[in-house]
Amino acid sequence: MAEGHTPAKPTEFLSRIDMPADLRQIAQEDLGHVAEEVRQAVIEAVSQTGGHLGAGLGVVELTVALHYVFNTPDDKLIWDVSHQCYPHKTLTGRKGRLNTLRTGGGLSGFTSRAESEFDPFGAAHSSTAISAGLGFAAGRDFMKRDNQVVAIVGDGAMSAGMAFEGLNNVGSEKRRMVIILNDNHMSIAPPAGALSEYLTELRAFMPDEATRDAGIAKEGLPSFVDRPTMFDDLGVPYAGPFDGHDVDEMVRVLTAARDHDGPILLHVITRKGKGYAPAEASADCYHGVSKFNVADGKQDKAAPKAPNYAKVFAGTLIDLAKEDERIVAVSPAMPDGSGLTQFGEIYPDRHFDVAIAEQHCVTFCAGMAAEGMRPFAAVYSTFLQRGYDQVIHDVAIQKLPVRFAIDRAGMVGADGVTHQGAYDIAYLACVPNMVLMASGNEAELVDMVTTAAAFDEGPIALRYPRGEGAGVDMPEKGRVLEIGKGEVLREGSKVAILSYGSRRHDALAAADKLAAMGLSTTVADARFAKPMDDDLVRDLATNHELLVTVEEGSIGGFSALVFDSLVRQKLDQGHARLVPVFMPDIFIDHDKPAVQVTAAGLDAAGIVARVLDALGMDAQRAMAAAAAGAE
Amino acid sequence: MAEGHTPAKPTEFLSRIDMPADLRQIAQEDLGHVAEEVRQAVIEAVSQTGGHLGAGLGVVELTVALHYVFNTPDDKLIWDVSHQCYPHKTLTGRKGRLNTLRTGGGLSGFTSRAESEFDPFGAAHSSTAISAGLGFAAGRDFMKRDNQVVAIVGDGAMSAGMAFEGLNNVGSEKRRMVIILNDNHMSIAPPAGALSEYLTELRAFMPDEATRDAGIAKEGLPSFVDRPTMFDDLGVPYAGPFDGHDVDEMVRVLTAARDHDGPILLHVITRKGKGYAPAEASADCYHGVSKFNVADGKQDKAAPKAPNYAKVFAGTLIDLAKEDERIVAVSPAMPDGSGLTQFGEIYPDRHFDVAIAEQHCVTFCAGMAAEGMRPFAAVYSTFLQRGYDQVIHDVAIQKLPVRFAIDRAGMVGADGVTHQGAYDIAYLACVPNMVLMASGNEAELVDMVTTAAAFDEGPIALRYPRGEGAGVDMPEKGRVLEIGKGEVLREGSKVAILSYGSRRHDALAAADKLAAMGLSTTVADARFAKPMDDDLVRDLATNHELLVTVEEGSIGGFSALVFDSLVRQKLDQGHARLVPVFMPDIFIDHDKPAVQVTAAGLDAAGIVARVLDALGMDAQRAMAAAAAGAE
Repeated sequence: MAEGHTPAKPTEFLSRIDMPADLRQIAQEDLGHVAEEVRQAVIEAVSQTGGHLGAGLGVVELTVALHYVFNTPDDKLIWDVSHQCYPHKTLTGRKGRLNTLRTGGGLSGFTSRAESEFDPFGAAHSSTAISAGLGFAAGRDFMKRDNQVVAIVGDGAMSAGMAFEGLNNVGSEKRRMVIILNDNHMSIAPPAGALSEYLTELRAFMPDEATRDAGIAKEGLPSFVDRPTMFDDLGVPYAGPFDGHDVDEMVRVLTAARDHDGPILLHVITRKGKGYAPAEASADCYHGVSKFNVADGKQDKAAPKAPNYAKVFAGTLIDLAKEDERIVAVSPAMPDGSGLTQFGEIYPDRHFDVAIAEQHCVTFCAGMAAEGMRPFAAVYSTFLQRGYDQVIHDVAIQKLPVRFAIDRAGMVGADGVTHQGAYDIAYLACVPNMVLMASGNEAELVDMVTTAAAFDEGPIALRYPRGEGAGVDMPEKGRVLEIGKGEVLREGSKVAILSYGSRRHDALAAADKLAAMGLSTTVADARFAKPMDDDLVRDLATNHELLVTVEEGSIGGFSALVFDSLVRQKLDQGHARLVPVFMPDIFIDHDKPAVQVTAAGLDAAGIVARVLDALGMDAQRAMAAAAAGAE
Repeated sequence: MAEGHTPAKPTEFLSRIDMPADLRQIAQEDLGHVAEEVRQAVIEAVSQTGGHLGAGLGVVELTVALHYVFNTPDDKLIWDVSHQCYPHKTLTGRKGRLNTLRTGGGLSGFTSRAESEFDPFGAAHSSTAISAGLGFAAGRDFMKRDNQVVAIVGDGAMSAGMAFEGLNNVGSEKRRMVIILNDNHMSIAPPAGALSEYLTELRAFMPDEATRDAGIAKEGLPSFVDRPTMFDDLGVPYAGPFDGHDVDEMVRVLTAARDHDGPILLHVITRKGKGYAPAEASADCYHGVSKFNVADGKQDKAAPKAPNYAKVFAGTLIDLAKEDERIVAVSPAMPDGSGLTQFGEIYPDRHFDVAIAEQHCVTFCAGMAAEGMRPFAAVYSTFLQRGYDQVIHDVAIQKLPVRFAIDRAGMVGADGVTHQGAYDIAYLACVPNMVLMASGNEAELVDMVTTAAAFDEGPIALRYPRGEGAGVDMPEKGRVLEIGKGEVLREGSKVAILSYGSRRHDALAAADKLAAMGLSTTVADARFAKPMDDDLVRDLATNHELLVTVEEGSIGGFSALVFDSLVRQKLDQGHARLVPVFMPDIFIDHDKPAVQVTAAGLDAAGIVARVLDALGMDAQRAMAAAAAGAE
């Protein structure tokens, strides 16, 4: 099935195309060549930068046809999730910067209003395009403009409730817009849920080239399905299925859709990774890749220096699940990312991929917990925002023992602004009945998964960062930590650093630097934000001049809880001064995680700087003095 | 259509029924009488307590049949939203306490795990029952039990994405459970969206009694619809429509459903307010009522002492919309509650009820804002939790001018624990780019709506409480407030109270009390939490001994932002001591709002107590001393 990789001649057409207006000067018969050159350009660029490849390769022909038919940027293309937008970026003035994708100061890996007028709406979380598109359509109607609005949504994204909410409104508003259901039969993982099975049924109606003109005419566009679809039921006429890799077909269908009145949904069949053999042959169709060799597709994955947090989580859970049959694991369409694929291989009946459905994920877990199971909901920090109401309403109020494994907590690197795990400490700190933990390293994560598995009294959450651990020794077996107790890692007398979670090693490194300056420093790992270790806070506050809290999260989280502890214990005056170090109140763009951490002032140097500032010391002089002392 | 109200004989059957086991001893032919007695008991109780009436009256026959057929509590009944649960409570050991509904210490107006084993899952926000039900079904299968699980979901609740996410998983998991689509063609308001129109199509297939045995047999249950429904498409076999007020029909259908293997959806047609003429005749079918006279249905609504906040919001918006054609208003199924019904009457094209769809609501607004409109999203604090990710991802990151009118912020009274508007300050305080306001009284709300309408630079939110204002003079026209500037209301020298929002009058009353004790007190209204009025904070911190923050919200909100201001300005040491007064870290049950405020320590007495405590003064002695001084 996979086609071989034949290098195109990148200069023949693409060199003449900077903007879509240039594309529209090309003869339609040459669009297939344009598509192949775009595909080649994307492969070349991602081979250098890494990034999302498979989704983009699947929509190359569709993208070319869209910009050929629609009058972008007046007509609005709204790419759902938008990890498929690299071909779009290639055709909209950004081909020269493709090799900066997802790097600091370079192109975002997603659409971005700040980046181009051809990106009317930014995205990165799934299933927003229909709602946003309807907003654009309504705005257009109010403004008495006549542009078209096109939302391009993957079949995986269609499983999220938000997409359904959007369809439900589109079907009653009846405004002119086009929804393209880009069906590659994939989410990031293979798709889950009944809708996916239903789309498979519909796909079977796709005609071959010879018979496709026999489609039932429907408002100017053919439907090949022999009955009303659920989209028709929802007031959005369905047309298709169409072959998304046939540029001529796409131009013909999109032209009809462009001129269609009211909403229309086009079911377009594509293949993720299309046209690049290594991607087509891989299980995830090269959804997200490291830098790779174009000739053979071999990815340049640096050997890990330490275990990956997600794998540590999943490995520990696999061990615990042997001993406790009540443990089940639920992931909303992220079995690989969350490390649960292996769990599912060992315990197929106890692993649930519930599709992109964070709201359902949380409440499904609540139901299982109410019935006596012990579910782990594995959801990234940024995606748990989608299930926030359910955490409060269905889990915390009822004090049900659901365990939240919050991955990607803190800086996420190249995924950038939309994926930063910045808010979970704050948005959970205010929720009664929650127990909150954060892992200082991968060994502590083992203990925390073990602790969560042993905690039956209510909800408990553990957060841990993206990527590799700190390289510490790993325990044979996890310990059950005492709830609400931290640990002193190093004793000092002047400065106390109370670290919550992932910056633990920076706290320790900062202590070394401070000690070298003559500032004797204690470091403690709080482990828990709720319940707070009031005894530890009291010890630190009464025996030091400064109490520095460090967390890879926003304002209103751990630092607020420590301040509350000080107030409750009447330690807020006449004791250590509280110096809260947390993420700044800005959205942090894509870059290397280490660069993001440094920019946020959360690395050792940043912590030291805050301490010196609080002590009224000049950093340079302090360091010079320390250096002089050391000589 | 409306039937007259004929008082039943409440003791004939109901006196013999305490629990469902008693109900099952009644002959099936008498169930209609039981239903009428249950209906009567609910009407009598709600006439004394107020509460949700219409939804319960619509499911009386269904409830009787459910407990007759299913072996509750082993079989699990999960009532979605559960404002229809009063008949269920009547039949499950709680009829003697119906007259305590929604009052302090009395029965909750919703299902509650803490209240009864017949309430396996609490609810109050909509559309959770399918997800929870699947959790119960999965738990049952793991535990190798054989009980049935029944989720009862209204047609309005079915519009929420979460319900779709649940169906999508139910349809692929294929576990044994029953979903009852209780279709009364109503949300709280008339239903919105394409699904509602689709259900109307399906309703038309309901046979009359004579023909209903001709239904197409489908897995043991009849479907009268001539084609696969969208529920069938999603892998959940559809049966119906059935007459939900025919007890015999319900018993027959539920018995077949009980013994059905795999999931099944029963489309049951009911009438909201059924059997009580005043409810049937009213536009909202007595969805939520005050105490009323049973004979004529006349509600005992105390004359308002001051304008209602929601009406002030909507009235102001109506005025502003005259001047700015870009203003539109969006509500997720709460046009009445949010006050927007009148807005919609005046500007029908500029008012959107998007159904129960908070996620879509927020992103639809983002799309309109991106296209140049100026949308107001009117969402209660507790329901905005459902759109949290969209606030961050679609609005704040893109800095789009969406205005969030956050109603029911703070204590909500009788709706209780599930509806408290406790978290919005904290969950928005951590989001960059947000401007946050809170209204100290109804006049300030006018100014804040005006300010939001004039603010084009990004998202802005204003929070205000449920119910009536403080009775202050109202301005003819709102003022545009300076962004990030508070107002000093009263000057003092020892204590400074910085109030954010609804406790403003308590702050002023507390200052009176403190002044009477010889503690000269300044009171300021912060108006904004973001951006913080650093100048005001500096003035208060440098010229007072204490700086008391007061907010009707959780930890991590306004107080955290004030502390941050102190730290940034290096005012956290050697200046006023910060005394944060916020809601306690507990879920607060239903009661009168004033009782809740007092219990939370947010009234004048509570603020005074915190001040005296911080000053190390004994309250009684301070007051005695003050009283002595005043003599």
